[in-house]
Amino acid sequence: MPRHLVAALVVASLAACRAGEPGDAPAAKGGADRPAATEVRAASFDPAAWRAPADSEIPTDSLGASIRRGLALLQHTPDSLPHYAPGRIACRNCHLDGGRNVDAAPLAGSHARFPKYMERTGATITLADRVNYCFTRSLAGRRLPVESREMSDILAYLAFISRGVPVGAKLPGAGGLVAMKDTLVGDTLRGASVFRGKCAACHGADGAGNPAIPPGVPALWGAKSYSVGASMAREERAATFIWHNMPFGAGKTLTPQEAFDVAAYVNAHARPDSPGKELDWPAGGAPNDVPYDTKSGHKAHRPPPVLPRTNADGAIVPRPPRAATL
Amino acid sequence: MPRHLVAALVVASLAACRAGEPGDAPAAKGGADRPAATEVRAASFDPAAWRAPADSEIPTDSLGASIRRGLALLQHTPDSLPHYAPGRIACRNCHLDGGRNVDAAPLAGSHARFPKYMERTGATITLADRVNYCFTRSLAGRRLPVESREMSDILAYLAFISRGVPVGAKLPGAGGLVAMKDTLVGDTLRGASVFRGKCAACHGADGAGNPAIPPGVPALWGAKSYSVGASMAREERAATFIWHNMPFGAGKTLTPQEAFDVAAYVNAHARPDSPGKELDWPAGGAPNDVPYDTKSGHKAHRPPPVLPRTNADGAIVPRPPRAATL
Repeated sequence: MPRHLVAALVVASLAACRAGEPGDAPAAKGGADRPAATEVRAASFDPAAWRAPADSEIPTDSLGASIRRGLALLQHTPDSLPHYAPGRIACRNCHLDGGRNVDAAPLAGSHARFPKYMERTGATITLADRVNYCFTRSLAGRRLPVESREMSDILAYLAFISRGVPVGAKLPGAGGLVAMKDTLVGDTLRGASVFRGKCAACHGADGAGNPAIPPGVPALWGAKSYSVGASMAREERAATFIWHNMPFGAGKTLTPQEAFDVAAYVNAHARPDSPGKELDWPAGGAPNDVPYDTKSGHKAHRPPPVLPRTNADGAIVPRPPRAATL
Repeated sequence: MPRHLVAALVVASLAACRAGEPGDAPAAKGGADRPAATEVRAASFDPAAWRAPADSEIPTDSLGASIRRGLALLQHTPDSLPHYAPGRIACRNCHLDGGRNVDAAPLAGSHARFPKYMERTGATITLADRVNYCFTRSLAGRRLPVESREMSDILAYLAFISRGVPVGAKLPGAGGLVAMKDTLVGDTLRGASVFRGKCAACHGADGAGNPAIPPGVPALWGAKSYSVGASMAREERAATFIWHNMPFGAGKTLTPQEAFDVAAYVNAHARPDSPGKELDWPAGGAPNDVPYDTKSGHKAHRPPPVLPRTNADGAIVPRPPRAATL
């Protein structure tokens, strides 16, 4: 059935419903309780019922080719873009299930919520800039040129897995990783023990990851892991990712305390620096677990040793500069 | 009423409706005619009922500041960005009513339909690239740096006037200007007569526009007008804009033939060149009224004299190049 017919039928049946059952229909509530214009526009969207499209729904046309390339880049980031993602860590390692997993910093719906104001940046940024925060901080690499085909492809994929989400709507997980119910304090010694027992088999006792285990196990510390400026370098952020998703395939089996312990242990190790990180949260408001000092007054939470960046030239995503300066 | 409650009520009432009136509800049509998953996702959106948010709905937060700056740039393009829009023509001159006017190449909903494959380009492009086609072709200026604050602001405004449109949905006008019902052949002599009678008072007998008439009347030809590579330089595209919207405030009063006559007259005059235009529609399929030859075999329709570009360096929006070449 053509989409516009489906839409017309649904609207028609809703109208018939309202006419036939005035006592139950929202329209019968009267003018005083009428939702504002913006609410009306989004009223028929149910975030809980929405599901991201499956890969099998990627169209077979030219746009579909771009979407598929974008997905491939998220899956095989260091292999496809070694200059921009030089580590042993790919987009897919955090954004599980092609970015559809609501417990793993979902990418689904991301196209609908950008541009947005980002407090860490202190500016309104585009989704392309947000992608580049992943490249520079989480992948400890370089900014992917915003005008490149690869960025277009990634953005096409992000729009694809946002299909049907009204522009401006936020899905569960829109703020990134789900916050842990309680913020605990991790113990690195206990964390080392849990790590040896439940993490090291895949990630290695040295945290270096393992490319031989499909689809590739990421490095958790060292030169090929995420930088100190990544969200994952924050204890609570790492703990919530670990608790929800790790051990891989057995998420939610650790206790929250164990998750914080492992997070503290992992994040105590040396990792790449993140140039410019001291400028984060320029208006203040840095979360407690940010592991570095900021000029706006935050004091580092358990700062790890940092490794000098060999790719410092492209490692910063500036606040969007005035065109006159470019 | 909170938005999620409204949504829940609507969904609930639809469900009740289906249960109570199985004969009329689309769900009762049976499995064979069941819409595909993608259709279900967008089924509750009614493009005809959707209305773009008003300026008064721009939020008062930091994102709202960006949205307002974006709107101001679309309104006062040459004043705000003289390096990028050096002519006597602004975004608002084609995109009337802040981009909400469905008869005037609406910007409303644009955020929901990009990235998309563009046949003229022969590639999947982002909305930022599409904006830059306006800067380089319609404003006969230079590419606005995609990573600039000004571009972020414009994109923030475009997302704002797309709020509530499901990602992937197309509104009326999504393809640009509404096609004229009949494609006629304009007569420049008749067009000159109509122009003198109904257009010259504002646009000037020399087509140079008039900045003294608020909010500024654009130049229709000459060095400060749109380039030969703009959609408006195509006879049918200009005719449909003119017929729907001109004389300003008295649209739809000319006959379609008069609109084509004026379009032919206006577009017969010299205007800025558009470097690289011969590469348009690389896979063929250029519309009949494109006024320049293409390498894929199109023969120019009534090509106007072209003026050399003084800003040729930034006048081309390339197909997104591979990152490795940047």
